[in-house]
Amino acid sequence: MDGVDKYDLLSDLAKRRGYFWPSFEIYGGVSGYLDLGPLGTRLKRRIEDLWLQLFVQQHRFVVVSNPVITPEQVFAASGHLESFKDLMTTCGNCGRHFKADLAVSEAMPGRTDIAIEAMTPGQVDSFVKENNIRCPECGGQLGTTEYFSTMFKTNIGPYGDVIGYGRPEAAQGMFTDFKRVYDATREKLPIGIAQIGTVMRNEISPRQGPIRLREFTIMEMEIFFDPSEPRCPFLDRVKNVELSLLSAKTREAGNNDVDLVMTEEAVRNGQISNEWLAYFMAVSTNFARCLGIPHEKQRFEEKMASERAHYSTQTYDHQILLDRWGWVEIAGHAYRTDFDLTAHMKHSGVDLSIFKSFSEPIERRAVVVIPQESKLGPILREKTRAIVDEIAQRNPEEVRKAFDTNGYLEIRGFKLQPDQVRFEERNTRESGKHVVPHVVEPSYGAERLVYSALEYAYTRVDDRVILRLPRSLAPMQIMVFPLMPKDGLDETAMQLVDTLVLHKFDVEYDESGTIGRRYARADEIGVPLTVTVDYQTKNEGTVTLRDRDTWAQVRNDLRTIPELARGFLAGQLSFTQLGTPVETKLEK
Amino acid sequence: MDGVDKYDLLSDLAKRRGYFWPSFEIYGGVSGYLDLGPLGTRLKRRIEDLWLQLFVQQHRFVVVSNPVITPEQVFAASGHLESFKDLMTTCGNCGRHFKADLAVSEAMPGRTDIAIEAMTPGQVDSFVKENNIRCPECGGQLGTTEYFSTMFKTNIGPYGDVIGYGRPEAAQGMFTDFKRVYDATREKLPIGIAQIGTVMRNEISPRQGPIRLREFTIMEMEIFFDPSEPRCPFLDRVKNVELSLLSAKTREAGNNDVDLVMTEEAVRNGQISNEWLAYFMAVSTNFARCLGIPHEKQRFEEKMASERAHYSTQTYDHQILLDRWGWVEIAGHAYRTDFDLTAHMKHSGVDLSIFKSFSEPIERRAVVVIPQESKLGPILREKTRAIVDEIAQRNPEEVRKAFDTNGYLEIRGFKLQPDQVRFEERNTRESGKHVVPHVVEPSYGAERLVYSALEYAYTRVDDRVILRLPRSLAPMQIMVFPLMPKDGLDETAMQLVDTLVLHKFDVEYDESGTIGRRYARADEIGVPLTVTVDYQTKNEGTVTLRDRDTWAQVRNDLRTIPELARGFLAGQLSFTQLGTPVETKLEK
Repeated sequence: MDGVDKYDLLSDLAKRRGYFWPSFEIYGGVSGYLDLGPLGTRLKRRIEDLWLQLFVQQHRFVVVSNPVITPEQVFAASGHLESFKDLMTTCGNCGRHFKADLAVSEAMPGRTDIAIEAMTPGQVDSFVKENNIRCPECGGQLGTTEYFSTMFKTNIGPYGDVIGYGRPEAAQGMFTDFKRVYDATREKLPIGIAQIGTVMRNEISPRQGPIRLREFTIMEMEIFFDPSEPRCPFLDRVKNVELSLLSAKTREAGNNDVDLVMTEEAVRNGQISNEWLAYFMAVSTNFARCLGIPHEKQRFEEKMASERAHYSTQTYDHQILLDRWGWVEIAGHAYRTDFDLTAHMKHSGVDLSIFKSFSEPIERRAVVVIPQESKLGPILREKTRAIVDEIAQRNPEEVRKAFDTNGYLEIRGFKLQPDQVRFEERNTRESGKHVVPHVVEPSYGAERLVYSALEYAYTRVDDRVILRLPRSLAPMQIMVFPLMPKDGLDETAMQLVDTLVLHKFDVEYDESGTIGRRYARADEIGVPLTVTVDYQTKNEGTVTLRDRDTWAQVRNDLRTIPELARGFLAGQLSFTQLGTPVETKLEK
Repeated sequence: MDGVDKYDLLSDLAKRRGYFWPSFEIYGGVSGYLDLGPLGTRLKRRIEDLWLQLFVQQHRFVVVSNPVITPEQVFAASGHLESFKDLMTTCGNCGRHFKADLAVSEAMPGRTDIAIEAMTPGQVDSFVKENNIRCPECGGQLGTTEYFSTMFKTNIGPYGDVIGYGRPEAAQGMFTDFKRVYDATREKLPIGIAQIGTVMRNEISPRQGPIRLREFTIMEMEIFFDPSEPRCPFLDRVKNVELSLLSAKTREAGNNDVDLVMTEEAVRNGQISNEWLAYFMAVSTNFARCLGIPHEKQRFEEKMASERAHYSTQTYDHQILLDRWGWVEIAGHAYRTDFDLTAHMKHSGVDLSIFKSFSEPIERRAVVVIPQESKLGPILREKTRAIVDEIAQRNPEEVRKAFDTNGYLEIRGFKLQPDQVRFEERNTRESGKHVVPHVVEPSYGAERLVYSALEYAYTRVDDRVILRLPRSLAPMQIMVFPLMPKDGLDETAMQLVDTLVLHKFDVEYDESGTIGRRYARADEIGVPLTVTVDYQTKNEGTVTLRDRDTWAQVRNDLRTIPELARGFLAGQLSFTQLGTPVETKLEK
């Protein structure tokens, strides 16, 4: 584990070339934080744009933005205040704290059947003792396990009693905003509401570089659909996508064998409980492939009941194989049902259900709630209208139940008494009904994807490094070299750079050192296309184009470069289509 | 102030249509937080992309990403721990807290000569009393002014002693990372390092909707240049840009008159102290114009010494005129000199200067510091090399000064004693010198720009609202309508939508209500182009295109729409170039 692996090699390259490095380095660093340099930041934005295209734009779904700091009520309702915590074990010798499941999985690798998360602190202590799991830092005895809340806590404003937390997921903003977005987008289901933004998790002892961060960019979408119409209209688009499934049952049997199964089949045979869940797992497979991660290095691990987040009835982690850490989660696919919307309805008193019209109105006798405005008016004054309207929207059964259970019904902070309403059986004509949508969620961490794409791009050919990033993602797209920085070659090269900047390419100019060294540097940065201006350029107006991946070279007219580059980077042109082949000596 | 103004009108539209609304609404809201809906989020990303293009890409500068939560040492060094605080005054009657300068400026509007920020808490109390400034909420007596730290504070990790703050600006990440970025980008000055990301300011009592937020997206750039070469090579590009300057001197005289002055002239006559500062003020003027804010609604207010942030020697606030709040800052342009880099060098002990080669090496006699490795080795062991190297990089004068002042020199936590080095006069050959770069900073809040662009786009024509957003920024670019949702018109329209989605346009389909209502809705959302499929489409294959701003209509071939739309939205084609004019009845 401590040898030079791809993580070490890549981290070194990433620092030198400007992909990423640990944050706050000049102050000794704080673990769990990562800076993205110029290339990393651009790679991340490209990955975000790809995600937006595959998950949002092609379905005409929408994106919203909510704050990071979120008031306590929201997380009290969502269950995070109670459940978003980790088992923390402490070394009796050095006093260091560790996330218990990580300490165990590090000591007992490959044992996917052990669910530390499901244990009580006392059970963890016993388990650690029985299996003689020692402190990863000093080898001391681990123990005295307790819960640690992994949300960052702060105060909002000067009053001291307004508690806020850094959100650990973006999802709650999409739930609390659901009705606003539903109304603004013309009341249609299904709808996907997505978000890209900062989230924070106060990890106990993050020691996995870019893989376990205390702050990262989440790319998360909630698909809201009517549970009585759970079909996904896009499923047909992914019918040829095969999924690698590692089921919870297999894992419970202590086994790691995956089933290879077509997306639709996985829904039909019940392995995946919902079409939307299956559809986005297939999209996720394609997305990872676009990042350069081959199908055989991907799998979906179903979480066991004891491991699942509190809001989920089925969760698949999309995992990929990384050199140092083995199978690592790049996405969570969760079927959250109506858990969150129902929780927020209950805690806020605001109706988040949608009204679904029947094709024909239905007539029947039913109990209705009739607010007694003569009694309510004097008490509620200018609020009467709003509260009367809200009573009318409530389900009469639930109103009755509230009176039976609590003796009152709370609406917007006002406690409605039983004598302030009447229940009456009437002939009603129902034009529709209230439905609380169900939700499926795919969720990604952008920085982890940046790292994964880089690791899969990292290639050695003899003693040289080539970063074979997919062309459409490459943060530096073109480098322009004058063969020599003189005789006007440099000026022509700079003019080409200016032209390419105007065409909005990400381009760099380099005139230093031998041409071979410049090519090697471009390969290491992952630049798909290099253009060299030489003495032939002066006579014939042509330049040399070089392919990062094959080191092949072609020549073409200087003026065609923007168009050729556009087609090549978008994957519409192959390198051999870019010009006339040039005989080159083999690069060393 | 409390009537229906553009802010009220726009807020209503923004909620209904999905631009923005107050956060956490279902829980009663927390002031100072804003959600962006589907349209607002997309408008913000377009504004970010425009900013990246104008400030970063066209100069081939770079963008980095740093965490929001930042450890205390960073802000201790930068001066924020000491200086990032506001004077908070409290109402003796209702107990509410207010930002003192806002309470005063609200009570005494237009008085740009009063600098509350420069007062002590006691002076504020006297001023408030003398001028009888009352509580804006209850009219009670204000007083007991004190400082309130406006950084959000939290704990990092489980140890309780690692304090972190939500960063109030992104700048510090760019300073602490400067050397890494400088090295990765091949050691060239000038270089601009930019960042787009979340920042947090724990405002005392924000009551200005989208204008004063506790969390927002900053778009900030630090331009690092050699102070001995302060020329900006791009200044020529903005030579025709006129700036409206409201100087500190004018303000101190109690006056609000602006000088209209060409950018270069403002540098020559000393009104703007640095070419880079002037250049980016001109770019800023153009940027605001691209957002739809005319030149005459913009000005630059020079901050008085007492108002400037602790790190700045000259600051101009770029202000624009808003309907409710008058002149509002949309950007700060600050000359930060070497304040921050020097502070971080001092606090971290890490050298952040750059080495600048002379064109010819210079030979002279000079004092050098010679570490006594025989004495240091036994104490420092494996750290000897690193510390010896660092001593060699230090300025001998400063080493001597440290010994004289403190009796020791601290390097990486080790206190070097005078007897552990020797000073020697030698013939030296200097190939260059160490330089601490100077910094100019333009800084923007993205949400405020979203609001400003919307307010300037908001137009009433008779009883209708048109959101005349610049075409290139419009978050919904095209709407497609079937004249009637039947006879195959709906299918043809949906096919066009699918085609436009493939071409990556932001497009919506609408078949509900009369065509007039659909046009009115498109105008209110700010959709530049609408396309209607009608019965002529079935026969001739043509569709109607309609211009949001003139309500003019033209017809053209269905198949040409993607190309026409691209040209129109990019501003390369005018509406009349899109097809054959159609006679229309005047819309009502």
